[in-house]
Amino acid sequence: MPVRRFYTLSGSCPDQVGIIARVSGFIAQHRGWILESSYHADDGNGDRDGRYFMRMEVRADSLPFHLAEFRERFRPLADELSMTWKISDSAVKRRVVIMVSKQEHCLYDLLSRWQSKELDIEICCVISNHDSFKALVEWHGIPFHHVPVNPDNKPAAYAEIRRIYDEVKGDTMVLARYMQILPPDLCDRYPGQMINIHHSFLPSFVGARPYHQAYQRGVKLIGATCHYVTSELDQGPIIEQDVIRIDHSDSVEDMVRYGKDIEKAVLARGLRYHLEDRVLVHANKTVIFR
Amino acid sequence: MPVRRFYTLSGSCPDQVGIIARVSGFIAQHRGWILESSYHADDGNGDRDGRYFMRMEVRADSLPFHLAEFRERFRPLADELSMTWKISDSAVKRRVVIMVSKQEHCLYDLLSRWQSKELDIEICCVISNHDSFKALVEWHGIPFHHVPVNPDNKPAAYAEIRRIYDEVKGDTMVLARYMQILPPDLCDRYPGQMINIHHSFLPSFVGARPYHQAYQRGVKLIGATCHYVTSELDQGPIIEQDVIRIDHSDSVEDMVRYGKDIEKAVLARGLRYHLEDRVLVHANKTVIFR
Amino acid sequence: MPVRRFYTLSGSCPDQVGIIARVSGFIAQHRGWILESSYHADDGNGDRDGRYFMRMEVRADSLPFHLAEFRERFRPLADELSMTWKISDSAVKRRVVIMVSKQEHCLYDLLSRWQSKELDIEICCVISNHDSFKALVEWHGIPFHHVPVNPDNKPAAYAEIRRIYDEVKGDTMVLARYMQILPPDLCDRYPGQMINIHHSFLPSFVGARPYHQAYQRGVKLIGATCHYVTSELDQGPIIEQDVIRIDHSDSVEDMVRYGKDIEKAVLARGLRYHLEDRVLVHANKTVIFR
Amino acid sequence: MPVRRFYTLSGSCPDQVGIIARVSGFIAQHRGWILESSYHADDGNGDRDGRYFMRMEVRADSLPFHLAEFRERFRPLADELSMTWKISDSAVKRRVVIMVSKQEHCLYDLLSRWQSKELDIEICCVISNHDSFKALVEWHGIPFHHVPVNPDNKPAAYAEIRRIYDEVKGDTMVLARYMQILPPDLCDRYPGQMINIHHSFLPSFVGARPYHQAYQRGVKLIGATCHYVTSELDQGPIIEQDVIRIDHSDSVEDMVRYGKDIEKAVLARGLRYHLEDRVLVHANKTVIFR
Repeated sequence: MPVRRFYTLSGSCPDQVGIIARVSGFIAQHRGWILESSYHADDGNGDRDGRYFMRMEVRADSLPFHLAEFRERFRPLADELSMTWKISDSAVKRRVVIMVSKQEHCLYDLLSRWQSKELDIEICCVISNHDSFKALVEWHGIPFHHVPVNPDNKPAAYAEIRRIYDEVKGDTMVLARYMQILPPDLCDRYPGQMINIHHSFLPSFVGARPYHQAYQRGVKLIGATCHYVTSELDQGPIIEQDVIRIDHSDSVEDMVRYGKDIEKAVLARGLRYHLEDRVLVHANKTVIFR
Repeated sequence: MPVRRFYTLSGSCPDQVGIIARVSGFIAQHRGWILESSYHADDGNGDRDGRYFMRMEVRADSLPFHLAEFRERFRPLADELSMTWKISDSAVKRRVVIMVSKQEHCLYDLLSRWQSKELDIEICCVISNHDSFKALVEWHGIPFHHVPVNPDNKPAAYAEIRRIYDEVKGDTMVLARYMQILPPDLCDRYPGQMINIHHSFLPSFVGARPYHQAYQRGVKLIGATCHYVTSELDQGPIIEQDVIRIDHSDSVEDMVRYGKDIEKAVLARGLRYHLEDRVLVHANKTVIFR
Repeated sequence: MPVRRFYTLSGSCPDQVGIIARVSGFIAQHRGWILESSYHADDGNGDRDGRYFMRMEVRADSLPFHLAEFRERFRPLADELSMTWKISDSAVKRRVVIMVSKQEHCLYDLLSRWQSKELDIEICCVISNHDSFKALVEWHGIPFHHVPVNPDNKPAAYAEIRRIYDEVKGDTMVLARYMQILPPDLCDRYPGQMINIHHSFLPSFVGARPYHQAYQRGVKLIGATCHYVTSELDQGPIIEQDVIRIDHSDSVEDMVRYGKDIEKAVLARGLRYHLEDRVLVHANKTVIFR
Repeated sequence: MPVRRFYTLSGSCPDQVGIIARVSGFIAQHRGWILESSYHADDGNGDRDGRYFMRMEVRADSLPFHLAEFRERFRPLADELSMTWKISDSAVKRRVVIMVSKQEHCLYDLLSRWQSKELDIEICCVISNHDSFKALVEWHGIPFHHVPVNPDNKPAAYAEIRRIYDEVKGDTMVLARYMQILPPDLCDRYPGQMINIHHSFLPSFVGARPYHQAYQRGVKLIGATCHYVTSELDQGPIIEQDVIRIDHSDSVEDMVRYGKDIEKAVLARGLRYHLEDRVLVHANKTVIFR
């Protein structure tokens, strides 16, 4: 089936009567063909006022205008609804920078999905504090940057990462088991752009060596969590999680091995939700329109 | 939190531009507050024309009229869209008849959920081909009908079941491990009203003794399937399924035991989807708006 | 299939060469037929010396003597191996006391399994701080004790619970969503006998209102944990855990509803492992021989 | 932790009293240190006589002799027990041949695990009916053979595959989404050596285009099955299976994408069980000693 070009409109606003009617009315008035649409009204469990979330895919060829004009025409309605929103074009590839350390499983997995076009993105480059994967990455035709990080050069190293990310015009940074803790100012600089995979079922086992912590506690399932990076370690909005069953016979090494399978699957799902604008963040939580 | 009374409008129609806009426009025009709304456009994977499915919950107290008038006012729009639709009132309890044989797990589970009001339904009666559960059911204040079925009395027995179901004005018949095969004419008489739990992951292991079949084949997971009953055995639209891991050490008896846990959970989820009008059937498949 | 009477021998000891050979040699020498046997050597992940765990089911009719004589004859070997061990007889029913508060799901589930003989135990009595379930429990022919607990009567109430448990000669106390925190001295009195079901995936969300905590954090899976009670709240050895997927549309009430299904399944599995001597505790962790 | 060299002894025999005692007695008599041991007695669910299965890992440095002498000394006991058995050495790498077509996900996944030494095997070569992965495979330093298969050259092509497999002294052939049906005589030539990943939850959806079949039936979970190849298509002994949840909004293409994640995880687990001699086959079923 040929893939149809479409625009994805997503956003959220304070809840009130008639939001769907007005937004879908705007699209219908221009004969826009909605391929997929999702809505969620969050009443905040009584803790706060209601908020309304939405996401729509509209066939590009059904509209009489392109993205720039869509934006201009939609803005007055969005303003009236106090909506935080964006619209993206499926024909424009997302620009992703991958950060890795020494573990290969997430990197291979992402390269495999990119190679088969399951992930239809531009991998601008891979950045690593080790050079182990230089040859592999370059063999795929992707630039590789070795940016060593050590106790003495941290500010310079992180400045270099920032420089590269800005230079390649990245819009998404994937920490694919990048084993360094990024400084708060770097985390805050790209809100909603940095995606991490943490090797535990958060909020259990925050921080270092989560499989050792899990082994000590004797849990019967281990997990992985894909989340946005914020300046607070492992506290950002959770995008996706999953677990796998273990038992008393599994050593820490076994857990690490099982864990890799969960980590790469969870990262891949979370990243896809992000790239397809299926994730809306509010109050440190995510709405995921699968 | 007090539960708010709401109307649930659900239906499907041939896909075209502007359906959401027109339906949500109708509701907004009457100041209807949409609590939850779901849409799905099925392009039929290229096999058939597109079809559009929708479900909305609207706060009853936000509308200036009641159900009868809603129906009357909405009908012209629905007709124009060639929509198959219905609307229901959360304040009107569904009328459920439960059919059981000798196994108790699904019955206890449904009674427990009914007792705690998790299932906020009217259990009109329980019908069984055995009298094992008479005292338990009646202790709960629910009428019990013993309708024995044997090779010689089948037409009379099924006529009696039909008579009871009609008399109590049932709108849903739950086959909670009712181990008799209902005759085709009875199945056809109440389309979309009869829900069965089959003790395998369909389409594997259709028919009798599925756990024995699973044991013979040496599968590593066993499952259960909740589906609408049609005149073809175990071929009706699937509502919900789940599986559980087994291994070589599990005997058929172990599988039966594990299977019970899956069966009752899958039946309870499937039944809830049905009772809340979350299931839309088309072409022997279901759309489930969770 | 008729159930065969068997003895279950389980225990653990410091690891060394030849343990299996000596224990199974002892049984073979008396022509004992081993139905099932499991072993585990824990090397402590380098943190401590190795420990050896074992469990065997031996057909009672294959041995030339009964339990008392088995114990006497086996003791010298066990002493030599510094083994902590026990042996039980499948023909002797375990004596279980169930503690509940106001939530019914675990109670109904246990009664259902008991009624069908899936749980082949003696339920000595049900104790509750409310009288909501008195009639239901007594209808099943099981004694019910209403022991109210309030800020002023705690010592007396817990003394009464202890008195009842001792009087009925309970060997297992199941806290089936008993919403009171038992005093440390009561917890310490019956080590390895008190089983709790906690409504979160421990160690996440210890303490009160775990579903509210889960809602606040925005996790994508919720869980339940069955564990032995120790004097430290929610810190005892974990027997069994499981999770279920939720999403942004689920309110705290939805989580509570989904959670019940996990709680009762996890409690039932954990309790069965315990009753069948499949759980061996060491260093606040469990070996589970499924 | 340094990995200790060990021998894995596995086998099965007709059940009788004293097997464990005699086998573990033999090992203890030579001061063999058992790292891990598993047993299973299958009473055949009443359908056939009992059979006994076992697997042990023994530290190589604890024994006073090497593999050849172990074999010679153990043979008389094995013969007496009518045991089918083998013993392998963890220091000897298994020799694996990977067969692929055009889909890359399983190949990348296996290469990634091999690269990181999670799979500590010798990949003798990759054989494909397409040359798409030649450069990737050779970049990893692994020989690649392009053996085109078309309606006219089948006998010659399969003879060539056999020749290569024999020449490299392969002991395991992995069909990593190799989309050709191998001829019965080739399947029969290497019993218990050929491992396939089928993209459905068998026995559902045998044969071609299982995701299309799943889409048509409207199932709520899709799966994958790792099994030994026999001359009957998709009927061999099942090693491992898993499933993933889908819903009405998933197209066949979505299922294919989700399915890949299950396929590679299931293949990797099944392959590991095979390589570590954790799989014992009997009567078209497997005992898996995890």
